[in-house]
Amino acid sequence: MPIYAAPVRDTRYVLDAVLGLDRYSNLPGFEAASADMVDAVLSEGAKFCEEVLFPLNQVGDAHGCTRHADGSVTTPPGFKAAYDAFREAGWPTLSGPTQYGGQGMPHVAATAFEEYLISANMAFAMYNGLTMGATAAILAKGSDAQKALYTPRMISGEWGGTMNLTEPHCGTDLGLIRTKADPNGDGTYRITGTKIFISSGEQDLTDNIIHLVLAKIAGAPDNVKGISLFIVPKFMVHADGTLGARNGVSCGSIEEKMGIHGNSTCVMNYDGATGFLVGEENKGLAAMFIMMNAARLGVGLQGLGIGEVAYQNAVHYAKERRQGRALTGPKEPDQKADMLFVHPDVRRMLMEAKACLEGARALCLWGGLQVDLSHAAATEEERQKADDLISLLTPVIKGYVTDLGYEIATRSQQIYGGHGYIREWGMEQYVRDARIAQIYEGTNGVQAMDLVGRKLPMNGGRAAMALFALIGEEIATARAKPETADLAARLEKALGELQAASMWLMQNGMANPDNAGAAAYSYMTLMGIVSLGWMWLKMAQASAAALGAGTDDRAFHEAKLVTARFFAERILPDAGALRRKIEGGAESLMALPIEAF
Amino acid sequence: MPIYAAPVRDTRYVLDAVLGLDRYSNLPGFEAASADMVDAVLSEGAKFCEEVLFPLNQVGDAHGCTRHADGSVTTPPGFKAAYDAFREAGWPTLSGPTQYGGQGMPHVAATAFEEYLISANMAFAMYNGLTMGATAAILAKGSDAQKALYTPRMISGEWGGTMNLTEPHCGTDLGLIRTKADPNGDGTYRITGTKIFISSGEQDLTDNIIHLVLAKIAGAPDNVKGISLFIVPKFMVHADGTLGARNGVSCGSIEEKMGIHGNSTCVMNYDGATGFLVGEENKGLAAMFIMMNAARLGVGLQGLGIGEVAYQNAVHYAKERRQGRALTGPKEPDQKADMLFVHPDVRRMLMEAKACLEGARALCLWGGLQVDLSHAAATEEERQKADDLISLLTPVIKGYVTDLGYEIATRSQQIYGGHGYIREWGMEQYVRDARIAQIYEGTNGVQAMDLVGRKLPMNGGRAAMALFALIGEEIATARAKPETADLAARLEKALGELQAASMWLMQNGMANPDNAGAAAYSYMTLMGIVSLGWMWLKMAQASAAALGAGTDDRAFHEAKLVTARFFAERILPDAGALRRKIEGGAESLMALPIEAF
Repeated sequence: MPIYAAPVRDTRYVLDAVLGLDRYSNLPGFEAASADMVDAVLSEGAKFCEEVLFPLNQVGDAHGCTRHADGSVTTPPGFKAAYDAFREAGWPTLSGPTQYGGQGMPHVAATAFEEYLISANMAFAMYNGLTMGATAAILAKGSDAQKALYTPRMISGEWGGTMNLTEPHCGTDLGLIRTKADPNGDGTYRITGTKIFISSGEQDLTDNIIHLVLAKIAGAPDNVKGISLFIVPKFMVHADGTLGARNGVSCGSIEEKMGIHGNSTCVMNYDGATGFLVGEENKGLAAMFIMMNAARLGVGLQGLGIGEVAYQNAVHYAKERRQGRALTGPKEPDQKADMLFVHPDVRRMLMEAKACLEGARALCLWGGLQVDLSHAAATEEERQKADDLISLLTPVIKGYVTDLGYEIATRSQQIYGGHGYIREWGMEQYVRDARIAQIYEGTNGVQAMDLVGRKLPMNGGRAAMALFALIGEEIATARAKPETADLAARLEKALGELQAASMWLMQNGMANPDNAGAAAYSYMTLMGIVSLGWMWLKMAQASAAALGAGTDDRAFHEAKLVTARFFAERILPDAGALRRKIEGGAESLMALPIEAF
Repeated sequence: MPIYAAPVRDTRYVLDAVLGLDRYSNLPGFEAASADMVDAVLSEGAKFCEEVLFPLNQVGDAHGCTRHADGSVTTPPGFKAAYDAFREAGWPTLSGPTQYGGQGMPHVAATAFEEYLISANMAFAMYNGLTMGATAAILAKGSDAQKALYTPRMISGEWGGTMNLTEPHCGTDLGLIRTKADPNGDGTYRITGTKIFISSGEQDLTDNIIHLVLAKIAGAPDNVKGISLFIVPKFMVHADGTLGARNGVSCGSIEEKMGIHGNSTCVMNYDGATGFLVGEENKGLAAMFIMMNAARLGVGLQGLGIGEVAYQNAVHYAKERRQGRALTGPKEPDQKADMLFVHPDVRRMLMEAKACLEGARALCLWGGLQVDLSHAAATEEERQKADDLISLLTPVIKGYVTDLGYEIATRSQQIYGGHGYIREWGMEQYVRDARIAQIYEGTNGVQAMDLVGRKLPMNGGRAAMALFALIGEEIATARAKPETADLAARLEKALGELQAASMWLMQNGMANPDNAGAAAYSYMTLMGIVSLGWMWLKMAQASAAALGAGTDDRAFHEAKLVTARFFAERILPDAGALRRKIEGGAESLMALPIEAF
């Protein structure tokens, strides 16, 4: 049966040796993130995830959620007790603002813990994840009264939260939504319509659920400029925070899905439910994007989290299962066969996973830090730069890391051979669960378009130029050191491909937008590869320095240097092929008439 | 709900214009394959698959198979009636030898029909597929009496067949099997042991099931040289072909799998069952490989078949679903949104699928033809060459085409956005079903090792050199024609990468076998890409010729030329990256100690 041990050692390495978290201890918000405090969060968090949440992962998949005739929903056996323990231990409060009852930890620390939650039980983690997203939107755009009324109990985990965007006929194109909001005359609205694919839409974990709902106010423009955002509580909330009457919102059904069965994905019916406008009329999309950008980083983390647990199991199996002999002769002649681990193609899959996961962990944590710095850095220039960087790389983290997660889950399953296809081994669940991360919060194709169409050209390409300059500086430093010179040279070549592709896009995407669209996915992948290569260059330098300083943990740092080399030899070469595909342009892609398909 | 229309037009094109099937009409076995006859098979076969089998595909997934307390197994609702119709129409007899009641159609025609069967209902197709494999093994290695007793009713579809290799502790490494065969003294054996993952192991479709079972005769060497092959009928068969007593073999349970739920994957218990030796003692593995090689081509076809039906649905959805506007401005301003089809990244996924599927169809049919030619070609030299080529490319067709099938199913699901993740749309089933083809009949990693370790070096590299020469000749011809010169030049570059990688392997794989193992998967993929490129060069030339000759069907052939160009621009560039990965060698891949994972 599956195993999981949170990679605390690797997380600490990234936070300390690679990102140098202690450099930021003077910044507001980081006072709660002393090394001791972060240590405690990671080790206690790891324990909770391993011992409480992980044993429920297969249970959640097998049982799923049940909707009863009265519209109530029961989560899988054990989820309610685990959620109570999760809440009582204070885990939901981790990164909430202290003003509303949170612990005020920086986003980067919460990101580290979130990875463990996902690895242990992604479907469970989503209940809390959606609440955090909804809380973020209210904190960003709600009135002070709304913040005070709703967020403390959301941050404590007493209440849940959801995001209601999609309708049966529209997902990406939110301009098409039909859910309407009719003014009641008292400042409130009657919300009517049907929302689908609502994660955590109804459940038995929390006393109340605060739904955030996109709807059109009567008379508003019939496009994205006519969308408003509303708070629709499941139970109305009195001014003192106690619960009132049931509101007119209910779960119509639970979707039958490929995976994440432990999370209740609901059709939600709004039948004249009372809604409270968040922010201004017709400005709902901007508010929703605040939630969405945080959510996209969280989804990227799902790629990492599922990839990590799948990889750990594949390693375990490759060490246990004996089949065949090493190509270089028997490694354990007293056994009837060698372990799978000796076969180079099994090692290839494990090394690819290791190199991509450790790179992605560094990138996700780096991204979490940029979110913090975009608010808390000392100067406006630094805040702007952090904001530029994370805006640029949010679609890359969401798109590329979830692609990696699915590939790694698939390859980890592959190592099990036929057993990987059998339910009880748990590997096929990881493939099914990982798959959704490429689809929701904007499909990865939408991420690619966001990158190429919005993030790359914004402010005349300022963010991309800042990224290239940062990577270039790191290359220049690393080239001067013999331990990292080769890696730096290889990354420089890949960065050159990315820069050339960016130039091509600037020139040809303007002339014909289809060129940008045709190139978008390859470009996102190319930027993902270079970003991971950059993280590996950081790690290689950090580990070379540690070895040079006579670290006690030589094996750990030597493994980092080998894995960095593997990444350079086995992953970076794709950069050149991706550039060639990008420069192929849109012509042959768009040439066929529709009837030819 | 899903749709499917068998691609008869494209199949005919490959058979007629690309492979020139009429050139072989003088060969033994091809007399049954006149153009009219093949037309009839394809059009009637298409109808049967579309109308009878396809509607049962989601039913099979939802219901699965049921094992009853007495060990009997019920297939999903509708399967028995469909199987009866399948058998009554004579479909199982298609390519069986006329001597035993078959129609004697060439393998290439049966391959064409098999693709449709898989697209329509892969789980159903497997019942017949396993019977064909078992029949092939008896025909190849059985005694005349065994052939006469068993194969006519297997070819007619009255009886089923299975392959029993895997045991709980061994899959790839068959030397480890424990199932034993004790001589009864009358020429028969008592077979005792447990086999797992037995596709079609027990079912309610046929009157009898002929199990082919690998077991070790007492005293035989305890490795692959001690394995024998046995016929173990579910019901004993009297000399006149009537059924006798129940044999000691039974289904212990049905595996809970990720997909192909409509096929009964069984744990089979042999409790002193009576078995009949096939061929010689201790030569079972060679007999099994006959079955396996045919089966591997059939599994490659599963990649094509599932990819095709998934792609067809994605096209359908992309034309129906409206979301957003074309980047170049609204295409249907009177609608509230344009169809998905206008978005370049959606087109990218559809074009990638189209280019890979049409290329794979040509390759699979080419492969089917080589199987025929290896038996029926006029000269020994031609037979040898066909055998060399199909031996070399069998692991490529199995490994690369099933990888494509999974990727295409995944991308086709992606086009549906969130709906792709929901069961009722049927797309997630294709992903789950496609996944097994990468695993069974030897994982794709095992295919890669077969290619690099056995097929490439066999006879001093004769097969690979023959392949490279054939492709080189085609390039030389195509370079001379303006319509195909650019494609030929691009393929020449990719072929150069493959040749260089082959040379590197010859030199470095010998010195250190781990270099071969580390390179194997990339090499298989590289050979797959070049092989598909070769097929596209054949198609481009055929279509350019048709256009030059004033064909009535200009749109079809023009689409081929565009798709060939797309393949060259978007898929062939991977060749260079794969070569670089291969030449990276095994060092960084094998360097880490086991504790580092």
